[in-house]
Amino acid sequence: MIISETTSFGGRYLRVSHASSTLNCEMTYGLFLPPEASEDNPAPVLYWLSGLTCTDENFMQKAGAHRLAAELGIAILAPDTSPRGEGVPDDPDGSYDLGLGAGFYLNATKPPWSSHYHMFDYVLDELPAVVKAQFPISDVWSIAGHSMGGHGALVLGLRHPYRFRSISAFAPIVNPSACPWGHKAFQNYLGDDEARWHDYDACHLLSHLMEEDEVLPLLIDQGDADQFLEQQLLLPNLDPQLDRLQCSAEIRIQPGYDHSYYFIASFIDDHLRFHADYLFAQNNGAE
Amino acid sequence: MIISETTSFGGRYLRVSHASSTLNCEMTYGLFLPPEASEDNPAPVLYWLSGLTCTDENFMQKAGAHRLAAELGIAILAPDTSPRGEGVPDDPDGSYDLGLGAGFYLNATKPPWSSHYHMFDYVLDELPAVVKAQFPISDVWSIAGHSMGGHGALVLGLRHPYRFRSISAFAPIVNPSACPWGHKAFQNYLGDDEARWHDYDACHLLSHLMEEDEVLPLLIDQGDADQFLEQQLLLPNLDPQLDRLQCSAEIRIQPGYDHSYYFIASFIDDHLRFHADYLFAQNNGAE
Repeated sequence: MIISETTSFGGRYLRVSHASSTLNCEMTYGLFLPPEASEDNPAPVLYWLSGLTCTDENFMQKAGAHRLAAELGIAILAPDTSPRGEGVPDDPDGSYDLGLGAGFYLNATKPPWSSHYHMFDYVLDELPAVVKAQFPISDVWSIAGHSMGGHGALVLGLRHPYRFRSISAFAPIVNPSACPWGHKAFQNYLGDDEARWHDYDACHLLSHLMEEDEVLPLLIDQGDADQFLEQQLLLPNLDPQLDRLQCSAEIRIQPGYDHSYYFIASFIDDHLRFHADYLFAQNNGAE
Repeated sequence: MIISETTSFGGRYLRVSHASSTLNCEMTYGLFLPPEASEDNPAPVLYWLSGLTCTDENFMQKAGAHRLAAELGIAILAPDTSPRGEGVPDDPDGSYDLGLGAGFYLNATKPPWSSHYHMFDYVLDELPAVVKAQFPISDVWSIAGHSMGGHGALVLGLRHPYRFRSISAFAPIVNPSACPWGHKAFQNYLGDDEARWHDYDACHLLSHLMEEDEVLPLLIDQGDADQFLEQQLLLPNLDPQLDRLQCSAEIRIQPGYDHSYYFIASFIDDHLRFHADYLFAQNNGAE
């Protein structure tokens, strides 16, 4: 059901709710359609995954992405960050980094979370099909995210390189098994067996790739005044893994920038242009 | 006191609190300083006045204005929309259109409001002096706003044309004496004598100008899908007044746009470029 439709930069920004069978609850997503998107001209999609405490709305409101997405002809799809609603378990302590708003883009296997927290499958399979059935988007997708959502973009893009053309992230959690946010989430959602955590950890996923394995083109921006860099994001842990592989990865340290949406807004145009190069390439080399 | 400082598009976005003698309370404002602003190179200022329910933060978060302001070298100053804090009277009914968040950029004369609600003087005199004492801004100012803030920009710019170089507004309340929002506010803040309302009503102010009086260059954008246009904003009431005068006024009706910040974001670049023409003109004809 369309909750709201707003004209933005000549395009359409929609908030839409639907019953999710994967998450076993009602979900809301945000979709920006560029002006020229139509059944005859479906738009390629940039999937945007948000960070802790966010909903489908934050990126659309604060990133300033509609302007260039409208110009380039890219649709943007922003899901919520966890299942929601009555009956969906939340952290009894009410913390911001577990439960509602903190789905970590994984499939939980441990009760009570395993009843609803299957954000990995929701983002990978159910939501793209749901949106495509109703709106003029194509099968050409790239994926990006911020913080917990940067983790999600890396994990989804590394595990399913044939589903996306490029990956980008702002201040991603690159090694969640080794940081307090990820440790807490994985222990609760997946249990104590750390071997099960590695499927959702970009550093571990990269460490299992062979030198000749293909990795999607990757752009990461990280502010050096980000208060979470040292304890939670652990970007330096990614470098030796990327160095080992044949991949087109650019990691940029942005001096003076923090973890906020002002940081994202400052560089979102670079990310949109980066993805546009692959989204509009005639031939996806991976196919 | 600097509450927060964030790097944004190479510039600085600050939230600052100060004790306001005009409003008799502690106030917070938002200031964006473009990258090159310094004591030797103070930046001209675009004053931004927000609408009902907003604080100093909404425009900075949602308008996407920092990008072009940084490029053009314009500072943006966004005050709060009313006095705040303990002891500041609010509407006992808790409505959104009177009291906190609804100062209407006027000087209230009627108790209990008259103890704190002097936003006109605060915006015109106190805040510019406070900011200039601490940050590298120049004396060259233009003024803009949205909805209630568009009303504020028009009234301040029309009454003090020598203080500003240009005026712009998104979906302004142009004739508050004649709409429910303005009627309620004026009756509460100013009393029943409607003659006292006219100093705060753009249509009335324009009606008292002579044909040869100078009016500042003016740009107004209005969405034709704005749910408040017909009952509250009353833009058509402005046309006969502007037609009578010698002035450079452009009123643009934007098809499909509503009253939201997505509308503002879609056209803020046009407004920044409009103001830049006057802010950076070597000679202000009015001086």
